[in-house]
Amino acid sequence: MSLGRREFLLYGSGFLFQFGGARDNLIVRSDSPADLETPVSLLDTAWITPNNFHFVRTHLPTPRVDSSTFNLAVEGEVNRPLTLTLSDLRAFRETSHVVTLECAGNGRVYSDPPVPGLQWEKGAVGTARWTGVPLRDVLNRAGIKPVGKHVVMNGADVPPGSTPDFVRSIPIAKAMHPDTLLAYRMNGEEIPLEHGYPVRLIVPGWEAAASTKWLVNIRVSENEFDGHFMRNAYRIPNRYVSPGSAVDPADMVPYTAIDVKSIFTSPLDGAAVRTGASVELRGFAWAGEADVTRVDVSVDFGRTWLTAALDADRARYAWRRFRYTWRPSRRGSYVVLSRATDSQGRTQPTLPSWNPAGYVYNVIDKVRINVEG
Amino acid sequence: MSLGRREFLLYGSGFLFQFGGARDNLIVRSDSPADLETPVSLLDTAWITPNNFHFVRTHLPTPRVDSSTFNLAVEGEVNRPLTLTLSDLRAFRETSHVVTLECAGNGRVYSDPPVPGLQWEKGAVGTARWTGVPLRDVLNRAGIKPVGKHVVMNGADVPPGSTPDFVRSIPIAKAMHPDTLLAYRMNGEEIPLEHGYPVRLIVPGWEAAASTKWLVNIRVSENEFDGHFMRNAYRIPNRYVSPGSAVDPADMVPYTAIDVKSIFTSPLDGAAVRTGASVELRGFAWAGEADVTRVDVSVDFGRTWLTAALDADRARYAWRRFRYTWRPSRRGSYVVLSRATDSQGRTQPTLPSWNPAGYVYNVIDKVRINVEG
Repeated sequence: MSLGRREFLLYGSGFLFQFGGARDNLIVRSDSPADLETPVSLLDTAWITPNNFHFVRTHLPTPRVDSSTFNLAVEGEVNRPLTLTLSDLRAFRETSHVVTLECAGNGRVYSDPPVPGLQWEKGAVGTARWTGVPLRDVLNRAGIKPVGKHVVMNGADVPPGSTPDFVRSIPIAKAMHPDTLLAYRMNGEEIPLEHGYPVRLIVPGWEAAASTKWLVNIRVSENEFDGHFMRNAYRIPNRYVSPGSAVDPADMVPYTAIDVKSIFTSPLDGAAVRTGASVELRGFAWAGEADVTRVDVSVDFGRTWLTAALDADRARYAWRRFRYTWRPSRRGSYVVLSRATDSQGRTQPTLPSWNPAGYVYNVIDKVRINVEG
Repeated sequence: MSLGRREFLLYGSGFLFQFGGARDNLIVRSDSPADLETPVSLLDTAWITPNNFHFVRTHLPTPRVDSSTFNLAVEGEVNRPLTLTLSDLRAFRETSHVVTLECAGNGRVYSDPPVPGLQWEKGAVGTARWTGVPLRDVLNRAGIKPVGKHVVMNGADVPPGSTPDFVRSIPIAKAMHPDTLLAYRMNGEEIPLEHGYPVRLIVPGWEAAASTKWLVNIRVSENEFDGHFMRNAYRIPNRYVSPGSAVDPADMVPYTAIDVKSIFTSPLDGAAVRTGASVELRGFAWAGEADVTRVDVSVDFGRTWLTAALDADRARYAWRRFRYTWRPSRRGSYVVLSRATDSQGRTQPTLPSWNPAGYVYNVIDKVRINVEG
């Protein structure tokens, strides 16, 4: 089950990227705007997801940005408004973080009752090494006034007609965290257009909608931004709600840091293996701003749990690969479960709660594996 | 939530029994033959289920048995065939056991995909004090020949037309276990007709179909009985099977000792409580031939678990009441879970496996509780 050299050349080196874009590899959930999901079989190929395998989430038509005329404005409640070119930006102290980004709605298809929105299965998640400069350093150069409590992000994407613009804000504390990045490279390359070229905000550990693509405007504000994508979208109930029920907007809060979660990437759901064979149960676990401390798997419908090994590859905001070698001695149709626990003591739930937008789906993962005689 | 004195008089004393039979209290799953399920609200009233609340499972028309002419034959591979009257039977050493009987198909309605058969919810289970004589003492008086390995049980019920007779066998080891009873009293009374008057076999810890009602014939045999109710019914796959799939009869084995399980009896599913109120989460847990060692409950969809208290009432083959006092501080729609563990190290599964007859349903139990503002 391990990755052979040939597969590494194909999948790990970006070779395919030269011959095919993301659409050749990914599941198209929406054609325009582009919303593309990564099959878990492709996630399985590496700890760091190749750019052309990384899921794509877009709200508006993808803009074309000319890097030669690119400007990033920093304005609002600052002492010294800035207009930065790409060269200006690159003159700041450069840093990199390996970050797992997950769409807030990853797993939405499993909502019961169903909810509207892109019907993501498990693959609206991916991990990349993002390189750029700390947003904090740029904000410090502009000088935040004491009234500045939120930072409003706008990309170069422009809404057609009456569609609301994709504008969101993050609280000043997260904006000033040294790990929040203005990124201009993704896995060592210029950021691909669909991933936010030339500059993308990376808010590590938060649901991926916080990581604004094609970023051109940063405005420090006294208040949380009150446009559609803050007021109505990316919000979750502040309590458990009854499946299918309406929720008073007053009971909704922004969805920010992502929860603990794991998914299997191999074998695939419905796989057949032979009795006595050695089967590596393998996947990834992540926990937003927390660390994954353990992953347990079950091969008996959750009666007993077995601790999986975690690969050495790790980074503060990145998923960890887990592996458990299973040697089924008896044929049968198994449902294999994975359950991650994190450094905040959180564990994946046994049953799903429900929310109107299908966010935060992180129930114990499962795949069916048929062990044949 | 505790049982007041008035309720005890109504429910605990058999008062209702004088004015109404089982059909006035129970859910009729089949009218004729009588298959009656106990609402969990009635199970909740006492550790020992009053006779008129105890579930009823019948395969054939209920026979009328005249106790004055009653005979119990003991024959087959024995040295001294016996014909015992009720007086003969009562002359053996009397003993009592409190036994939880559960229908093999309890919970069948939750099978996914659905399976044919009585669509029991949670209440095809009950607990009674059975009094009678050890089957072992009767078999010893008859003298089992060395070839006798199974004991075939037949009741006075007679199948109409081409319906197969309800005849089953148990292995000699279970038949000779000192706790296997020929019972003639149920909770201190003559056994009610629907529960097997005048004599019922009680096979403690095994699914209730082993506990033959209206028992009139005991035949020691070299082989397991090969009639319909052994060959086709009360059998489970010897491996996990894919939901909805057909199973080769060669892969089916008799279902004998019941598994570890718990159910909530209060609050009822969908109950509403007030924020800050004290809510007793209460139910029963049982484990067949094993002891329940703990019950945990969860009020956060199975992320964290809280150990429930177990009532002092206990008996080797009886369920135990569990209780956890919950004070919800925040409104919301909760799914509360219960998970029992037993002395064999078994724990209720997280997800159901599936079998063609819907037996052994023992997934972690759940009820929805709405905490209002």
